[in-house]
Amino acid sequence: MVRYKAIIMYDGSNFNGFQRQPNGRTVQEELEKLLTKMADGNPVMVHGSGRTDARVHALGQVIHFDFPYERPLERMRFALDTQSPEDIAVREVELVDENFHARYLVTEKTYQFKVDIGKPRSPFRRHYASYYPYPLDLDLIRRALPDLLGTHDFTSFCASGSSVEEKVRTIHEASLAVNEAGDQLTFTFRGDGFLYKMIRILVGTLLKIGNGRMAADSIPLILAAKNRNLAGPTAHPEGLYLVEVRYDGVKGIDHLAANE
Amino acid sequence: MVRYKAIIMYDGSNFNGFQRQPNGRTVQEELEKLLTKMADGNPVMVHGSGRTDARVHALGQVIHFDFPYERPLERMRFALDTQSPEDIAVREVELVDENFHARYLVTEKTYQFKVDIGKPRSPFRRHYASYYPYPLDLDLIRRALPDLLGTHDFTSFCASGSSVEEKVRTIHEASLAVNEAGDQLTFTFRGDGFLYKMIRILVGTLLKIGNGRMAADSIPLILAAKNRNLAGPTAHPEGLYLVEVRYDGVKGIDHLAANE
Repeated sequence: MVRYKAIIMYDGSNFNGFQRQPNGRTVQEELEKLLTKMADGNPVMVHGSGRTDARVHALGQVIHFDFPYERPLERMRFALDTQSPEDIAVREVELVDENFHARYLVTEKTYQFKVDIGKPRSPFRRHYASYYPYPLDLDLIRRALPDLLGTHDFTSFCASGSSVEEKVRTIHEASLAVNEAGDQLTFTFRGDGFLYKMIRILVGTLLKIGNGRMAADSIPLILAAKNRNLAGPTAHPEGLYLVEVRYDGVKGIDHLAANE
Repeated sequence: MVRYKAIIMYDGSNFNGFQRQPNGRTVQEELEKLLTKMADGNPVMVHGSGRTDARVHALGQVIHFDFPYERPLERMRFALDTQSPEDIAVREVELVDENFHARYLVTEKTYQFKVDIGKPRSPFRRHYASYYPYPLDLDLIRRALPDLLGTHDFTSFCASGSSVEEKVRTIHEASLAVNEAGDQLTFTFRGDGFLYKMIRILVGTLLKIGNGRMAADSIPLILAAKNRNLAGPTAHPEGLYLVEVRYDGVKGIDHLAANE
């Protein structure tokens, strides 16, 4: 058995999320089906850096799996990429130490959230950005963003029903960019981890601030209250992208260390 | 009766082209269904600047139709935009003279063709760019492009089976751009009109030149031969976008003239 790490992209539009489910097509299931076939029927389990919800996209999801045969890396990548469904692509494959784990050893994740603010809504972005047709003062959003940086208890920005007990997370980057045409926003959030639906609730709150229905200095009060009801609504999943997952300084992962 | 001109966008992925067909969903049919409903059941016919094939997209297709009621323009645009299917958007609506005709009075059309040259193929572009995984020397393509400019008989670049007899067209722009990431090409073609599948055959030929399988100075010979078999293959429809349609200096169209 050898352990492979892979960086994959997927268009989440036609998936019921990353994680295997009793109902609906999932990324994990598609990859496990393919890898099991490639392993001559020996069942292969795929472990992701974390789940993504239905319709959420990934540019840099990381997975690992144990495979019975060692294959040249580019041959392995090409086989996985071309034999997987066309809404999944495989960017990189590397061999990793048996101690590597795609979920447990994550040190940093980056997400982006795209908002179509054009008029009319672009048919081309309908699955790839959330649409926001209301007035927005981007300066109000830019004033609020720095209040998210640093280490906080993000209970107020976590969907109820989450089973995670520890809700303290550290955010290193929270930024907003506008495209040249001025009709699409991109929020970037980078941190040591994010709670269930946290990015989408952050964006829903920031848009409410930009729309003037919530004060630009609300974030510290919302954080302090530890109450989901004080934050804004949950933005739609189609705007969300898992962009990058890092495993800095993880011991025993020679292949990774050599690449950095 | 009043005549409206509208500029529309559509994601062609789930359409069997623009023009009404016995089988399959089309843009024309969807718009006629909606307009007929908005006209209280009086049948409304939609005329496009030209057909687009199945899976071909439009950023600026132009249509006209006669409607029994005069409505404020933004109200008309909003109604059409929000009540049409989500893969159609309505950018602009204006009132035009009864002599305006979306097809007969076209003076210039602009098309773009996008080619995904990244590795791996992006799942996000699979419906929005044609994929070309082979080596390309873009300088060879850039050397060939100017040979398309000007007035030529484009018989060699017209799909067989076309019923159009006059195959002389004038091309004003034929250019190539590469995105910042270096993984997507955009060809732009602007001219007084294009033959059936002409842009796709032009792109198929230019890619063959870029790949070194056809000489960079082949275009004049292919044009002179008036033989479809000498040109390259027809590129896939999902890379093609109708970007703009112009009606410069058309008499009797006061509303248009006032806008330019």
